Amino acid sequence: MSTVILKVNCQDKKGIIAAVSGFISGHNGNIITLDEFVDRDTNTFFMRVEWDISKFTLQRAYISTAVTNLAAENNFGGNWELYFTDDLPKMAIMVSRFDHCLWDLLLRHKAGELNCRIPLIISNHEDLRYIADFYGIAYQYVPKTTENKAEAEQTEFALLDNAGVDFIVMARYMQVLSPDFLNRYHNRVINIHHSFLPAFEGAKPYHRAFERGVKIIGATAHFATVDLDKGPIIHQATLPISHQDTVNDLITKGRDIEKRVLSDGVKLYIANRVFVHGNRTIIL
Amino acid sequence: MSTVILKVNCQDKKGIIAAVSGFISGHNGNIITLDEFVDRDTNTFFMRVEWDISKFTLQRAYISTAVTNLAAENNFGGNWELYFTDDLPKMAIMVSRFDHCLWDLLLRHKAGELNCRIPLIISNHEDLRYIADFYGIAYQYVPKTTENKAEAEQTEFALLDNAGVDFIVMARYMQVLSPDFLNRYHNRVINIHHSFLPAFEGAKPYHRAFERGVKIIGATAHFATVDLDKGPIIHQATLPISHQDTVNDLITKGRDIEKRVLSDGVKLYIANRVFVHGNRTIIL
Amino acid sequence: MSTVILKVNCQDKKGIIAAVSGFISGHNGNIITLDEFVDRDTNTFFMRVEWDISKFTLQRAYISTAVTNLAAENNFGGNWELYFTDDLPKMAIMVSRFDHCLWDLLLRHKAGELNCRIPLIISNHEDLRYIADFYGIAYQYVPKTTENKAEAEQTEFALLDNAGVDFIVMARYMQVLSPDFLNRYHNRVINIHHSFLPAFEGAKPYHRAFERGVKIIGATAHFATVDLDKGPIIHQATLPISHQDTVNDLITKGRDIEKRVLSDGVKLYIANRVFVHGNRTIIL
Amino acid sequence: MSTVILKVNCQDKKGIIAAVSGFISGHNGNIITLDEFVDRDTNTFFMRVEWDISKFTLQRAYISTAVTNLAAENNFGGNWELYFTDDLPKMAIMVSRFDHCLWDLLLRHKAGELNCRIPLIISNHEDLRYIADFYGIAYQYVPKTTENKAEAEQTEFALLDNAGVDFIVMARYMQVLSPDFLNRYHNRVINIHHSFLPAFEGAKPYHRAFERGVKIIGATAHFATVDLDKGPIIHQATLPISHQDTVNDLITKGRDIEKRVLSDGVKLYIANRVFVHGNRTIIL
Repeated sequence: MSTVILKVNCQDKKGIIAAVSGFISGHNGNIITLDEFVDRDTNTFFMRVEWDISKFTLQRAYISTAVTNLAAENNFGGNWELYFTDDLPKMAIMVSRFDHCLWDLLLRHKAGELNCRIPLIISNHEDLRYIADFYGIAYQYVPKTTENKAEAEQTEFALLDNAGVDFIVMARYMQVLSPDFLNRYHNRVINIHHSFLPAFEGAKPYHRAFERGVKIIGATAHFATVDLDKGPIIHQATLPISHQDTVNDLITKGRDIEKRVLSDGVKLYIANRVFVHGNRTIIL
Repeated sequence: MSTVILKVNCQDKKGIIAAVSGFISGHNGNIITLDEFVDRDTNTFFMRVEWDISKFTLQRAYISTAVTNLAAENNFGGNWELYFTDDLPKMAIMVSRFDHCLWDLLLRHKAGELNCRIPLIISNHEDLRYIADFYGIAYQYVPKTTENKAEAEQTEFALLDNAGVDFIVMARYMQVLSPDFLNRYHNRVINIHHSFLPAFEGAKPYHRAFERGVKIIGATAHFATVDLDKGPIIHQATLPISHQDTVNDLITKGRDIEKRVLSDGVKLYIANRVFVHGNRTIIL
Repeated sequence: MSTVILKVNCQDKKGIIAAVSGFISGHNGNIITLDEFVDRDTNTFFMRVEWDISKFTLQRAYISTAVTNLAAENNFGGNWELYFTDDLPKMAIMVSRFDHCLWDLLLRHKAGELNCRIPLIISNHEDLRYIADFYGIAYQYVPKTTENKAEAEQTEFALLDNAGVDFIVMARYMQVLSPDFLNRYHNRVINIHHSFLPAFEGAKPYHRAFERGVKIIGATAHFATVDLDKGPIIHQATLPISHQDTVNDLITKGRDIEKRVLSDGVKLYIANRVFVHGNRTIIL
Repeated sequence: MSTVILKVNCQDKKGIIAAVSGFISGHNGNIITLDEFVDRDTNTFFMRVEWDISKFTLQRAYISTAVTNLAAENNFGGNWELYFTDDLPKMAIMVSRFDHCLWDLLLRHKAGELNCRIPLIISNHEDLRYIADFYGIAYQYVPKTTENKAEAEQTEFALLDNAGVDFIVMARYMQVLSPDFLNRYHNRVINIHHSFLPAFEGAKPYHRAFERGVKIIGATAHFATVDLDKGPIIHQATLPISHQDTVNDLITKGRDIEKRVLSDGVKLYIANRVFVHGNRTIIL
């Protein structure tokens, strides 16, 4: 089944759903799922609608123009995006030395859980090349120091551009990206932080969790922004711990929740379910 | 804000969302939430839409007729229901000697979590009358034996009719209702079973859970049907247990999950989110 | 069954378990449960042992002296405590206007889940007196302002002393206790904070959780200390939320987790399972 | 740190803990952890104690004899087992075509989470050989039909014996082992069943879960016994699902919980924490 997803994000007004669903059925499209949300505080409307275009009377090449006209006629502005679901997005993975999130993403990809292509893995270490090799994915070693960071990022930009990457997943990358990098990939860099944010922002969250004596640990998938660990949160979860857990136990148990939360966040993003609204996300 | 909810359940066809949302915006209504689902196996369409009628150009009294016409014109048959959200449904509670689910429902009602009226509590014991008295709710004692069951149910029908009851919650009632009763209140009797169904249907689930040596216990809110504990499931949850838990510990821990699962199921029902589809529920 | 609980907390050394278990079996006591933990970082030993004294050859009145001797002989210092489980501790509840934690504690007490007496409820408002009356518990109204705080606490001390209170539960009391108060009841005041600490310490955690756009909310039961919301954590838990939840929804859902976490923490305390170790707790 | 674990399982009587802990400290051993449980219904005592033998005054070779004498003197019978934790147990994995549990076990083993050796993987298909090759583990292909089952098992016995295998994990093996096999490895074959037992024993649990319309799915790690899916349960967990999940979605989501529950169960077994008591397990 060939389908298209339209995401709309505009000021709330009467008749948007009617206009869009009328447009779809008017061209013989059948809606698969339609989800919407209105943020009452800011009077903002969000919609994600997916429809079957196998019998659609508009040719694929003209749908975008038609939606442009539809948006103009109905005044829902420029904030809409169109995705053909057979057009798989390209995900790059940035990784350091920890392998658990990388394995989790690659195993799920192999199992058909992640509807994307993975043309590129970038790392500041050579350690995990054998995993990329196992799956036949290009692994680019871009070492980073405090001095060469800007230059290294230029190398990364070239690699990402060449591979036609749509979005980036920091799978425990352990490096801070520059504002320049984050602006280029605005709301397209997903990071996993190994704590239940906003607790334990920054370095060594498991050590600090141990010191504080908390009874849960957690992980947070969020868009990386210039303010470290303060970007819009996509997904989070926690699990119980006890006084018996050492810092190493927290790190071990944390791997399980980090990889799960990251993969769940990535799935939502790939399914075009994530809207960023201020510093919050709407997941439709 | 005065709102109305329309539930539609019919064979899937193109244009239903467009027709309904066009009808709403055409009369100056603003959609609050719209959720839909299509069951691909049976090609069945489900929709729940809630809209603000404070500026609706159709008077409240005419909305039902207008929807009848809309359904006829668009061929979505007779399976639709209309609810005005300021018209609170009337819930009766049937209870035996266990008080935890009753307390939970009444405390949530008091806290404003349950948008319904509670005109009536029926019990086959006098034990919990003091709780009903505390909240000023009518408490009707209808004792039941194997012999008097049919007669007792006649008494209950009269009580339910007099109170204008819309639906019934069996809050650990511990009695099996007759087919006659269940037909009268088809898919309008919500029961809580103290296990994760389909495991441990019938009597003494905690004792059987202990004997089987399971590591979780659970609870299931479902519509009561003639086949005991086999009706459509609305909500379920589990919690971990260990070898240290005696049967009494399971019963104690179980109270927590029973009351939570039942109240969550009742909330979904009151919000008109529950559709029954064969022996399954669709929750929109 | 009459039992006694011994809690030991001292520097780790060989033979403590042997000495204590030898003492117990030597006097014809049968161990019900024995739990121990060694904190390797600080080389600290913790043990909780409960034994049946129905056939113990030492009379109840002499057990404490015997344990004093045992501790002296085996060098496990002064950090031990002895509790006869038929000697129920006396819990005072401090409450403001929110009723959910109070109800939860009282309902569980009624159901036999909390092995304590509740001689006293103190509040800075009259609102919840009717609940205390319902259960026949003394309800003392002690209004508090910035000006009268010290004086009001003197009143509270007198009430607590008269009632012979062993420990205090702040069931959403919404007032900060003075250092004087907290020193008097050092590690004997249990507070419930409505967030997953250390996130959202202080006021209005649900509002700040909403603003941060987190995908979970939580609650933390901890000992109240002079540093607000920084005391040793006894228990915490979280539950998932979504963009659909308003601040009011968070407050509503939060009630469920607050009351559960508080009651679970209180149960652990009453069972003499909680050891404070620096700013952490050991739960045996 | 070199440690030894003693598991004791006998009729409850006074003084066992004293005798064992006296024995340990008497030979200059230091207890790391001691856990015990008494099943009151059957008056059965269970204990797991781990102690540091780095300064133990008994040589390693004599410990077993000394414990035999200790057990005889104190009448705790023949039900005890002794494990030196630097003596890693040997685990064989049996697998069919599903790779998720196999990957999970091997990745955790690589990460140091599973304190065992894996000398052997047996499969009735060639499909997953590349994974074994990746980790350099022997992969033995033993095809099975209804006709050759007894013969195939003889081959398996030889392979298991040659490799000195201590216990077997059925990582979604999809084959029923004969009573002969299960007797040879009594309570040493761990299976993962893809439902929350006792619900959906036998084939196709996800299909039946879908048909029943449950709102949770689950997984159960248990010892395989002659009665299919009725053996002692080691660990189980569930996760919520909704009407939106197709059977394929359940299978996908199920993979996550199957592998986690299986690995958690295997960890408990490897840590010598699991006692079988009738058809239940005690986890110390």
